[in-house]
Amino acid sequence: MIKKIAVLTTGGDAPGMNAAIRSVVRYAVNQKLEVMGVFRGWWGLINEELKDFNHRSVSNIVNLGGTILKTGRCPEFQAEEGRARAYETIKKYAIDALVVIGGNGSFTAAHKFGREYNIPCIGIPASIDNDVNGIDYTIGSDTAINTALSAIDNIRDTSTSMERIFVVEVMGRDCGYIALSVALAGGCEDVIIPERKFDLEATCHDIVNGNLRGKVSWIIVVAEGAGSAPEIAKKITEMTGLETRQIVLGHIQRGGRPTAVSRDLALHLGKAAVDCLLAGEKDKAVGFTCGKIMTVDFETAIRRKEFNVDKWYSLIKALT
Amino acid sequence: MIKKIAVLTTGGDAPGMNAAIRSVVRYAVNQKLEVMGVFRGWWGLINEELKDFNHRSVSNIVNLGGTILKTGRCPEFQAEEGRARAYETIKKYAIDALVVIGGNGSFTAAHKFGREYNIPCIGIPASIDNDVNGIDYTIGSDTAINTALSAIDNIRDTSTSMERIFVVEVMGRDCGYIALSVALAGGCEDVIIPERKFDLEATCHDIVNGNLRGKVSWIIVVAEGAGSAPEIAKKITEMTGLETRQIVLGHIQRGGRPTAVSRDLALHLGKAAVDCLLAGEKDKAVGFTCGKIMTVDFETAIRRKEFNVDKWYSLIKALT
Amino acid sequence: MIKKIAVLTTGGDAPGMNAAIRSVVRYAVNQKLEVMGVFRGWWGLINEELKDFNHRSVSNIVNLGGTILKTGRCPEFQAEEGRARAYETIKKYAIDALVVIGGNGSFTAAHKFGREYNIPCIGIPASIDNDVNGIDYTIGSDTAINTALSAIDNIRDTSTSMERIFVVEVMGRDCGYIALSVALAGGCEDVIIPERKFDLEATCHDIVNGNLRGKVSWIIVVAEGAGSAPEIAKKITEMTGLETRQIVLGHIQRGGRPTAVSRDLALHLGKAAVDCLLAGEKDKAVGFTCGKIMTVDFETAIRRKEFNVDKWYSLIKALT
Amino acid sequence: MIKKIAVLTTGGDAPGMNAAIRSVVRYAVNQKLEVMGVFRGWWGLINEELKDFNHRSVSNIVNLGGTILKTGRCPEFQAEEGRARAYETIKKYAIDALVVIGGNGSFTAAHKFGREYNIPCIGIPASIDNDVNGIDYTIGSDTAINTALSAIDNIRDTSTSMERIFVVEVMGRDCGYIALSVALAGGCEDVIIPERKFDLEATCHDIVNGNLRGKVSWIIVVAEGAGSAPEIAKKITEMTGLETRQIVLGHIQRGGRPTAVSRDLALHLGKAAVDCLLAGEKDKAVGFTCGKIMTVDFETAIRRKEFNVDKWYSLIKALT
Repeated sequence: MIKKIAVLTTGGDAPGMNAAIRSVVRYAVNQKLEVMGVFRGWWGLINEELKDFNHRSVSNIVNLGGTILKTGRCPEFQAEEGRARAYETIKKYAIDALVVIGGNGSFTAAHKFGREYNIPCIGIPASIDNDVNGIDYTIGSDTAINTALSAIDNIRDTSTSMERIFVVEVMGRDCGYIALSVALAGGCEDVIIPERKFDLEATCHDIVNGNLRGKVSWIIVVAEGAGSAPEIAKKITEMTGLETRQIVLGHIQRGGRPTAVSRDLALHLGKAAVDCLLAGEKDKAVGFTCGKIMTVDFETAIRRKEFNVDKWYSLIKALT
Repeated sequence: MIKKIAVLTTGGDAPGMNAAIRSVVRYAVNQKLEVMGVFRGWWGLINEELKDFNHRSVSNIVNLGGTILKTGRCPEFQAEEGRARAYETIKKYAIDALVVIGGNGSFTAAHKFGREYNIPCIGIPASIDNDVNGIDYTIGSDTAINTALSAIDNIRDTSTSMERIFVVEVMGRDCGYIALSVALAGGCEDVIIPERKFDLEATCHDIVNGNLRGKVSWIIVVAEGAGSAPEIAKKITEMTGLETRQIVLGHIQRGGRPTAVSRDLALHLGKAAVDCLLAGEKDKAVGFTCGKIMTVDFETAIRRKEFNVDKWYSLIKALT
Repeated sequence: MIKKIAVLTTGGDAPGMNAAIRSVVRYAVNQKLEVMGVFRGWWGLINEELKDFNHRSVSNIVNLGGTILKTGRCPEFQAEEGRARAYETIKKYAIDALVVIGGNGSFTAAHKFGREYNIPCIGIPASIDNDVNGIDYTIGSDTAINTALSAIDNIRDTSTSMERIFVVEVMGRDCGYIALSVALAGGCEDVIIPERKFDLEATCHDIVNGNLRGKVSWIIVVAEGAGSAPEIAKKITEMTGLETRQIVLGHIQRGGRPTAVSRDLALHLGKAAVDCLLAGEKDKAVGFTCGKIMTVDFETAIRRKEFNVDKWYSLIKALT
Repeated sequence: MIKKIAVLTTGGDAPGMNAAIRSVVRYAVNQKLEVMGVFRGWWGLINEELKDFNHRSVSNIVNLGGTILKTGRCPEFQAEEGRARAYETIKKYAIDALVVIGGNGSFTAAHKFGREYNIPCIGIPASIDNDVNGIDYTIGSDTAINTALSAIDNIRDTSTSMERIFVVEVMGRDCGYIALSVALAGGCEDVIIPERKFDLEATCHDIVNGNLRGKVSWIIVVAEGAGSAPEIAKKITEMTGLETRQIVLGHIQRGGRPTAVSRDLALHLGKAAVDCLLAGEKDKAVGFTCGKIMTVDFETAIRRKEFNVDKWYSLIKALT
């Protein structure tokens, strides 16, 4: 019977993590559980940096970006010794189970640690890349997409007024989800993603032809995993002879006030994670699929996510 | 075989309608169809206010709120004579099929008109209320929710700083969807919706008790169909003796730059509507359900939408 | 020689108050002063609710709306007994001087209190109404104007798409500053302010004439001190026979992330206030006039502010 | 006596240019002048790309970024032959005077051209860099600052959550105005500007010392004219051994919905420019100084603008 849980955020921060923390803490308190907040992810477990959380600990954070628990990568936890020390902390504070808020890397670590020490772990998927398999959306991806879209809208003003070509790099190491969403919603002319071979020569051909017809403003979105904006812009300039600007949106996509989708998802999943632990479940993540809360085993969640990129790509091209 | 289609927006405007128009027009052109844009909804068909649209007609509108085709309610179309005149226009311009962008009222009209005159009509659900049955989301509801949420976040600053009770009225005539999403995401203390009986006395009791414990800031969201903010605020003041402020968000929820969700949905559905017409379909709406594009008969779409309000309401209360 | 100061926020909250607090506290610490934060304005002095503040007390608040010190009106301070108790607190904690962040009412109270008990008070003007005399801008007014403008932009989408008349009520009890700024920047058709007699009949005449020429979308801004949106909308409907919508923006104008102007002003003035106290000044407010930091006696600051409304009004009408 | 004027936008685009165009066109029409809009800046004069503008030509643009007249640099206009052809267009269309919306480069060109061909030119300062001498603010700089500030706020979420050092490059080739405003308002730890020698070693020393005390999150703003974010980040990593991220905000600062300040300034100056031409003035720019509309000779306007950077810099450091 679970009496005390701990919650932590690991990996890259994502907008909505604070809403998830709020939901885990308040719902757990509502269910008569004790809750501890662990700081700096796995590092805080290893180094005993954690404290008791109550209802008031999570006041007025639902609309803040980032994570009040802080986060980070933790190489020490990859080593057996690190995990052993983390387990010492768990025993010392009589923690019965963990809620791990993070992405694929976080779930991989929780999967290993939970089985090694027989400590129930439930994951809440939070990652701007939307790359957790078996669920529809991760917490934070909707916010990141809207932040990138807002930047694209700004660039469109200038690209139209000054009649220029822009290459805009968005996040997405293995996954073109952000790039495709933004390119479609932004009315962009082309998009380069990791899942699809890209023919830059054909695009340059289109640009030159477009130029002859009077189409002089172009925005090309590239996912960071598929290329670098400065390099692509340089190649386009070389191939077409037309001045091409570039911008790397980078970390502005990580922060900011979470959108309604990111917050509502986080709040529903926080409760769901606590419910899972109360029901004796472990070694899995909660998620939304088809508008319903469900769970997916960590083993499945960390597999490469498939995504019908062709449907998006062909629509983007058809509307250009 | 369809050669020429017309597109119109009817009913209340919703952010993302322009993205839907863009997609219908450009994809139809891409499929070698002719397209006409009809102005002011059904009124434009009755009064022959329409014109040829091409690829350029919808440039630079993907990120604009409102609708370049304009919209409005049209009582004349309820009468047989109005519909007869609309059909004259359709014959005169050799229009083979209609794409109708709007909500329940628009689909009811399209259902009647399409069958009466045997003119294929496909609907694209756009309405901030998210009240179209058989599909997950309408175009515009995500934007309206984020606009309302932004207002709630602002009110929270003042409600916390000045320690006050606020009643905030959001849109939703028959449907508490906006109110529930916003109340959850905004960390609000209570929510009043059409689908659920509300006990104002119990809430006032909570407020007074909270006040004794030192909880002096409250935000209560009410859907317009379930009550009026000024009246509820007045009652709370009377019952508790505590100063209570009210705000009716009203039409600011209708406008604004559409979010990524509203735009991407609109762009996918615009194509889907044209594909339906090309496949010989009619008398139905396109929509997303479980992340997939599908169709729903107008007859089903216009029925009252059911929505699991208890799941949302109990979570809001558990987290307060 | 001043060794310890206290800072408080009083009256209505305004975006940027937190930035002002940050600047007062950190600059005072930088100047080797001790600082206390007083909670809930004068009430906190009367009821001894205050605590020591240091550099870390004001971390990560520069971009937050509201005020971490909380605020409110305090009728007890109007009475001699209240002020006597406030002075007891000041003696007890060996506070040498006060920084009072607020508007006209706050300065009136500080003026009286400071002279009565010979306690140096320096005011920092923060009020969304921009109604402090002798200085160009109050902290918060730029943010409030941008919030109202964003709402007006949203309403324009719907007013244009649905061809409707809107009356929008903004803040401004004695002062049309917000209304004029917003009406001009929003491209609105008319504006009603306290400083100027308004001829509703003439406006209705313009509306009807415009309607005949095809101009069917109107936005009329009204300052709360000059009329109520619901009443004016009702009268326009009666006089013109045209459906007229209304919206009262209310408290959403108070909150929100402060703009750069509101923050930079607050940060410069926080330092300036501490510098004044160090220089032995008292009974005055700091402010920006012509881009320079200067001071204005409380007696002058609380007089009615004059403002060239005709220049603004005639431009609004010329551009309609 | 002036009967017909033409308006054009040249140089880099700035948010609020459309508001300025609206004001020039509508106020000129209001004053019974004829107006032409010239496309693509000086290029449009050389290549006879211009058309008649009326009241409706500038409807619904007040809130749009970019410029409907389009803009660009025009090397042909630097050559005598280009200017001669531009003058041919002016004669052919019986244009009596020009309103030139742009920055320093635009005014330099207008100064030369106006005197060469005795054509009255009045400038409206629009440039995100705020680098026009003799006036307080250029149209667009407030919007650019707020866009950059919003990015900085996002980065702060991540920098605090992940405890990292960030170098953020903002616009400002010769002028640190944007960088200083943003660094102060964003609560940033340091700022590098063209007007001031920067000691990177001292900063690295502070970072390392801060790190020992537990201060692990830093944001350093750099103006593009004073250094490159990637290079500075690399040096900090080398000097401190601490991972340092960088981001170049670039063109997202150019676009976007203009703020109230940018729009109101543009609308007042548009009228002022037309009034100048009607009063027979020429070879000067209109501007706001100390809250008043005034004029400044082109010769003065294009000189290097001085700006009290020390006041800003020392405040930023005192508050860190």
